[in-house]
Amino acid sequence: MNDIVTLGESMVVFDPSSTGPLRHVSEFKKHMAGAESNVAIGLARLGHRAGWLSRVGDDEFGRYITGTLKSEGIDVSRVIADAGASTGVMFKERRNNRLMNVYYYRSNSAASRLCSEDVDKEWIRASRMLHVTGITPALSDSCHAAVCQAIRYAREAGVPVSFDLNLRLKLWDADKACETLLALIPECTYFLPGYSEGRLLTGIASIEDMARYFHRMGPEAVVIKDGKKGAYLYDRDGGRWIEACRVEEVADPIGAGDAFAAGFLSGVLKGQSHAEAVMLGNVLGSYAVTIKGDWEGLPDLTELECLYPVEDTVR
Amino acid sequence: MNDIVTLGESMVVFDPSSTGPLRHVSEFKKHMAGAESNVAIGLARLGHRAGWLSRVGDDEFGRYITGTLKSEGIDVSRVIADAGASTGVMFKERRNNRLMNVYYYRSNSAASRLCSEDVDKEWIRASRMLHVTGITPALSDSCHAAVCQAIRYAREAGVPVSFDLNLRLKLWDADKACETLLALIPECTYFLPGYSEGRLLTGIASIEDMARYFHRMGPEAVVIKDGKKGAYLYDRDGGRWIEACRVEEVADPIGAGDAFAAGFLSGVLKGQSHAEAVMLGNVLGSYAVTIKGDWEGLPDLTELECLYPVEDTVR
Amino acid sequence: MNDIVTLGESMVVFDPSSTGPLRHVSEFKKHMAGAESNVAIGLARLGHRAGWLSRVGDDEFGRYITGTLKSEGIDVSRVIADAGASTGVMFKERRNNRLMNVYYYRSNSAASRLCSEDVDKEWIRASRMLHVTGITPALSDSCHAAVCQAIRYAREAGVPVSFDLNLRLKLWDADKACETLLALIPECTYFLPGYSEGRLLTGIASIEDMARYFHRMGPEAVVIKDGKKGAYLYDRDGGRWIEACRVEEVADPIGAGDAFAAGFLSGVLKGQSHAEAVMLGNVLGSYAVTIKGDWEGLPDLTELECLYPVEDTVR
Amino acid sequence: MNDIVTLGESMVVFDPSSTGPLRHVSEFKKHMAGAESNVAIGLARLGHRAGWLSRVGDDEFGRYITGTLKSEGIDVSRVIADAGASTGVMFKERRNNRLMNVYYYRSNSAASRLCSEDVDKEWIRASRMLHVTGITPALSDSCHAAVCQAIRYAREAGVPVSFDLNLRLKLWDADKACETLLALIPECTYFLPGYSEGRLLTGIASIEDMARYFHRMGPEAVVIKDGKKGAYLYDRDGGRWIEACRVEEVADPIGAGDAFAAGFLSGVLKGQSHAEAVMLGNVLGSYAVTIKGDWEGLPDLTELECLYPVEDTVR
Amino acid sequence: MNDIVTLGESMVVFDPSSTGPLRHVSEFKKHMAGAESNVAIGLARLGHRAGWLSRVGDDEFGRYITGTLKSEGIDVSRVIADAGASTGVMFKERRNNRLMNVYYYRSNSAASRLCSEDVDKEWIRASRMLHVTGITPALSDSCHAAVCQAIRYAREAGVPVSFDLNLRLKLWDADKACETLLALIPECTYFLPGYSEGRLLTGIASIEDMARYFHRMGPEAVVIKDGKKGAYLYDRDGGRWIEACRVEEVADPIGAGDAFAAGFLSGVLKGQSHAEAVMLGNVLGSYAVTIKGDWEGLPDLTELECLYPVEDTVR
Amino acid sequence: MNDIVTLGESMVVFDPSSTGPLRHVSEFKKHMAGAESNVAIGLARLGHRAGWLSRVGDDEFGRYITGTLKSEGIDVSRVIADAGASTGVMFKERRNNRLMNVYYYRSNSAASRLCSEDVDKEWIRASRMLHVTGITPALSDSCHAAVCQAIRYAREAGVPVSFDLNLRLKLWDADKACETLLALIPECTYFLPGYSEGRLLTGIASIEDMARYFHRMGPEAVVIKDGKKGAYLYDRDGGRWIEACRVEEVADPIGAGDAFAAGFLSGVLKGQSHAEAVMLGNVLGSYAVTIKGDWEGLPDLTELECLYPVEDTVR
Repeated sequence: MNDIVTLGESMVVFDPSSTGPLRHVSEFKKHMAGAESNVAIGLARLGHRAGWLSRVGDDEFGRYITGTLKSEGIDVSRVIADAGASTGVMFKERRNNRLMNVYYYRSNSAASRLCSEDVDKEWIRASRMLHVTGITPALSDSCHAAVCQAIRYAREAGVPVSFDLNLRLKLWDADKACETLLALIPECTYFLPGYSEGRLLTGIASIEDMARYFHRMGPEAVVIKDGKKGAYLYDRDGGRWIEACRVEEVADPIGAGDAFAAGFLSGVLKGQSHAEAVMLGNVLGSYAVTIKGDWEGLPDLTELECLYPVEDTVR
Repeated sequence: MNDIVTLGESMVVFDPSSTGPLRHVSEFKKHMAGAESNVAIGLARLGHRAGWLSRVGDDEFGRYITGTLKSEGIDVSRVIADAGASTGVMFKERRNNRLMNVYYYRSNSAASRLCSEDVDKEWIRASRMLHVTGITPALSDSCHAAVCQAIRYAREAGVPVSFDLNLRLKLWDADKACETLLALIPECTYFLPGYSEGRLLTGIASIEDMARYFHRMGPEAVVIKDGKKGAYLYDRDGGRWIEACRVEEVADPIGAGDAFAAGFLSGVLKGQSHAEAVMLGNVLGSYAVTIKGDWEGLPDLTELECLYPVEDTVR
Repeated sequence: MNDIVTLGESMVVFDPSSTGPLRHVSEFKKHMAGAESNVAIGLARLGHRAGWLSRVGDDEFGRYITGTLKSEGIDVSRVIADAGASTGVMFKERRNNRLMNVYYYRSNSAASRLCSEDVDKEWIRASRMLHVTGITPALSDSCHAAVCQAIRYAREAGVPVSFDLNLRLKLWDADKACETLLALIPECTYFLPGYSEGRLLTGIASIEDMARYFHRMGPEAVVIKDGKKGAYLYDRDGGRWIEACRVEEVADPIGAGDAFAAGFLSGVLKGQSHAEAVMLGNVLGSYAVTIKGDWEGLPDLTELECLYPVEDTVR
Repeated sequence: MNDIVTLGESMVVFDPSSTGPLRHVSEFKKHMAGAESNVAIGLARLGHRAGWLSRVGDDEFGRYITGTLKSEGIDVSRVIADAGASTGVMFKERRNNRLMNVYYYRSNSAASRLCSEDVDKEWIRASRMLHVTGITPALSDSCHAAVCQAIRYAREAGVPVSFDLNLRLKLWDADKACETLLALIPECTYFLPGYSEGRLLTGIASIEDMARYFHRMGPEAVVIKDGKKGAYLYDRDGGRWIEACRVEEVADPIGAGDAFAAGFLSGVLKGQSHAEAVMLGNVLGSYAVTIKGDWEGLPDLTELECLYPVEDTVR
Repeated sequence: MNDIVTLGESMVVFDPSSTGPLRHVSEFKKHMAGAESNVAIGLARLGHRAGWLSRVGDDEFGRYITGTLKSEGIDVSRVIADAGASTGVMFKERRNNRLMNVYYYRSNSAASRLCSEDVDKEWIRASRMLHVTGITPALSDSCHAAVCQAIRYAREAGVPVSFDLNLRLKLWDADKACETLLALIPECTYFLPGYSEGRLLTGIASIEDMARYFHRMGPEAVVIKDGKKGAYLYDRDGGRWIEACRVEEVADPIGAGDAFAAGFLSGVLKGQSHAEAVMLGNVLGSYAVTIKGDWEGLPDLTELECLYPVEDTVR
Repeated sequence: MNDIVTLGESMVVFDPSSTGPLRHVSEFKKHMAGAESNVAIGLARLGHRAGWLSRVGDDEFGRYITGTLKSEGIDVSRVIADAGASTGVMFKERRNNRLMNVYYYRSNSAASRLCSEDVDKEWIRASRMLHVTGITPALSDSCHAAVCQAIRYAREAGVPVSFDLNLRLKLWDADKACETLLALIPECTYFLPGYSEGRLLTGIASIEDMARYFHRMGPEAVVIKDGKKGAYLYDRDGGRWIEACRVEEVADPIGAGDAFAAGFLSGVLKGQSHAEAVMLGNVLGSYAVTIKGDWEGLPDLTELECLYPVEDTVR
């Protein structure tokens, strides 16, 4: 039995050895990338049992993804090696320390063929939490259906659902994205949008109004992440800010949202209050931006103790 | 005006820094690969003006391919940067020094969208030779049409056509491949199959019979490459073997056929006899297997003089 | 339930990026090394469930070893992370393509603290085979005791025991080594020495005599590996040679014995005759020397089909 | 016909893989360096046709420079491969993030043999702009003569001349440098000194006085670059500051002046006012310091749109 | 005759090529590390004759350490290559730009076997200064005895003794450490603790009180280093602060204390006043944090001139 | 006092990380190269005290050469750091595994300014052997004079002179080379030409005749190296072949002649007969071709024992 299960696409990402246009880059390092698998790893490092469901190609890149997750202790027993499609890959391009481009080779990837039939009802029912993101429904209709199916199984079994918005306008049409993702909010227990994407989704500029709006749609708790300012929590006790931790030097902003989700969900799974869980999310999110790589440097329990601020930071 | 023009797909190839399954490889080097561009570079290094026509993505990988060919002096004025598709990429996997796998991400690549309209009639008519391979028709119907269009323009203008068979059964159905490629043979002036692929195409085991069979289909000269044995030439003077050069240590067999084509066509363009041209093809082919990389180490005119055997090797 | 379980030390090995004395080498690559874990991986790739038991340090190198084995599908549920000692490491030195030195930092390593109490009786009883090597008893008295305990549990439960001699005179005194290892032979079902180490152990020069001698000590089958000549099998049907496969180019001889053991034991587990199993051992052993790395390139079932010789090679 | 042509030396530069004294550095990366070729590349990326004239050795390093410029679309038809001398090389040494040394191997380089006879009159007359720097006259007397010849041809044909001061006291005697470079100012249309080198040249501390002084010598417009403060423009409309863009993090200050020149000249070539052109120079200069490498990361037209500040920054 | 001699352990350190947990790092670079050898190199670069005494393994890592010190001009004539033990090694782990772990493989290293008999009386008597640190007594009892022996020889011959506290609680018990190290203070001429470790040793929070306390124990001069604040000097003229130099960007804080010691001792050896010597210590210490590596980038005399602040910074 | 002293140029050599034309190579590794320093290192590793005299630039590359030799135990006390010239550098280019080009940047190098005044008379007189090569006289007239001066000092003091021909026609005119080098033969005690260069020098095809011819010119012993065949020794006992050792796989032929010289001279210094010394030369020469790098892998005394053939190979 897992504490949390999630589903989505993980890709092989090729990171350039030097900055500048890719035509001048001669070497690349292979890594793994995937919002949902990042969250699963983050939770596993904090001592939770986490499972990840997806399709990968029946190829070396697929075996790399599955093996990496296994080595981090993730339950990959429901991952399907699909002989009919390739594992998705992407190339990063760093123009300077702030500008980054991405080149995808993921259309028709194995993960985009994930479908409702792939979702194991019992596996979800036996978990204490389901986590989904707004990326998966963007990949294909069958992926969208798989997410809906997973949520349905979870709700039927009383398993709480966490939903990280992750609005990626590069992957699909804005109108369709908004319509699809808005429809998922009432289904989830914990809704974790970023402020900017929340504004795109709703047109609401005030974070307090936005939080109230989302909360009325159904989630038990809404947590809007707003970078250096911290996160705005809205639940039955109303709304309040939870301050972010101070970060001295940002090494890599990518993966901060996933780390936040892992921290928040760890808190929830441990029975913390929403505010305490958001604080834990802040700790992980602010640590994540000091490390390179999307997930490699996420803290384990021992490290977490060194990171956790002693002072109460709720206001 | 070019001495030779050619068309086809070039891809960005990622070469692993170590042998073994790709899941254990952490670094890759970027290179360029493409049968037709290899031939163009080989000819340019021998002092000929060569042009290459294709589509690449309007992306950094496309600019890499175009820029690399420019830096080697190839006329890329007819290359189209296609904003609607990506440049194809592939990953090599070396299990040991002899076994190699290839993972393609080229379906729906920019080059697969090459079509007859892309073929510049005047550019072909103004060239002294057209070179095509059996890879391009395998990529898509529009690619097949583009090859046919290029051949038509060439023949109308009396421009001789060179055709390197390059039967790639991974890319298409065997029956369709044979039908399509057999139909191209009567259109070409110089036909350059390998022995094994020729046998697959015709079912004829005897290299002499095969050469006669191909010659009757129309080409002025047929040259069947047979590895260490050398090449079998069949033209109006009948058939004869042209011995290969001795190679002490094979570093990388890939690119030998393209180097052979470059050498043979260079001889033809310089007005050599068919036998002399095949000898030059042998020199380049046997040199190519001693160098790493598909084309980077192809010889220029100065190096060629050191390589060329003084003795007459025709028998 | 595992098909096979094994126990021993795996270390982190640092491979120099260039040949020559280590004082001139500036870069090293991290890998994993361990005779028993090599066998476990080899068997897992051939479709068997394999388990590995050991101690590793409660440190990053220990997590690297455990994670790598997990990612290869090995059951590491009985591995102990020992906070009181470090994971062993070693450095390779390649003077030229044939001479290699090794520098160990393994004395008092976590694995050397393995003891009989660490051996899970039920885990061994539930397996179909136990595999041990002569390296483990050399590491410490408690390691020796652990090997004996494992064998005892296996024999009590009727689980066959495979014993790969692996006489390492660098690790212990020759007299003690011989005495200790000779005492293990009667306990095993399958005994897999190399010819040279067998000669050191027994003083017998004739491979036939040596095999008969070992067989009389108790094992059901004795297989003496003799490099290019192949292996000499001695069982109830007497002794006979099983020819090795031809190897065109040796890339790295290390790991051949472990690959042989994996192949042989796979055959046995699949119910093949001893001779057939030795043939499978030969196939894996000869393939292993063509790949770099101790285990990374071991074949999976798909690759094995390409490697397996069709002809009967028993004589 | 080119929009702009330039002449000067480009070298192969070897960049250390780590900081510290070169005796401890074991790896170097090969790049290309040259003030004038940087400007040509910057302009080509912004859509202009640019040509570069020089001598390189008839060696691989010369072919590297010529090929790299070809791949960036520069007209190198007038470059001479000089069999009598080597292409210049240099080694960088980075003591820490701020201190850099340079070791030149360029005396008697091929480029130092550039002479007036190498300057193609028609090629210059057919261009819309000539760009020169104060580095070239420092290399040799014949290089000085070549620069003068190029300016003479340009002026005869009414082609405007841009002159970037680039006072390099390491390369020649200060007195001779000042005398020589001062003599060039009256010949140029656009004069682009830095503030510090301008002060060295004139002894004038006030940037306003300095600009007026230079303007009286003849140039139509004088632009004095002053780092973070921006640039001071002096033309028939008098003098005024054009503010620099804000830079958050400097990655590599080298190449900023060349990028500024490329931006300014692009503006001029597009018919912008001097002030607008200086603004464009500022945009490129401030972007250049955020990227590593002298020219590899210069923006193309698409990127420029993202960089260009919308607000009017002239005051 | 040496200007200064020192003794202690130097290890081979393996530096990860990327940040993150070591289990994800695949490449390491070999370096040398050792507090006392750092000081010796720092002094040799400033023109002093320096000697270093230790044991290294009779292995390639030992030869690497000895050879590196020889190449930096250190007198290693008293170094013993010990065939009975290995040279110590350590692995660095960088979690992000601020958090670093270290994994030691140094217990029972060759250097830990250093003993009083290894200390050459005449070599020490012929030197103008002896430098020791608090690390060496932590390594073993025989190491502690060697340090005491060296100090005894020095004092007998009137050779001043410098003592850098270097309290490393990872290496030994805090009580034993404090007792042992406190006993050494009366023996030394120059005592160079850091503020934090001084506080741990004495429990005194006020730097002024602490300095007075240490001075009363016997040393001629006490210099307490306090990072960005500078150093607090206490000698017969009482106590005063010597300001640190401003550092714009810290690249690597490791090695700053050793650089300070080298600078201070160079000043003393050149006959400077204590205050001047501390200023020189500050210059080297603040420069050291701008360079990567523990010692590779330490300045030589030429560089020092560029670094030295002209203004008097004593207050 | 040294057992042997030598003089000549050592350069910093940049080795490409991949094969192919240098324009496609992006990374280079720094090494040290020099025939005479190779011999000095070879002898030092075999336990002899060796000294090397030269000029290097007063730059990091010079410090690299001097430091490297120091770390190998060579006496570099007579090396001059020349502030007026740079240390010579060279780039290797490997077209394939057999073809290599070299690009020199050594004209006017510091070493080419070596002159007779640099040669320390007492240092040479105090040595037991002087070793020179035919490279040094090719570098400049002053270098030639320095070699002559060194030989004169040696002969006056009765110090035997070893002369390795090393005819490098790339560095000077063939006629001048022959005249100059022939004039040195009568001055030397041991003359060590290769067969091919000996033939170029004398026009004599028979190795026996050539040896006799050289011997009549004055040397006590002439040893003509002839690759796989071994070496032909001619001394007062007449001429005879000394067989080479068998080499299974050549990794890098460069440095074999220097290794031979080191082995031969070691034998002579140890008082072996000429024939025994040639055998030792053969052992080192044949080992040297199995290692990469010119000198890094030369054996020390321990390794030599493993390499030395037990059987008598003189015939």
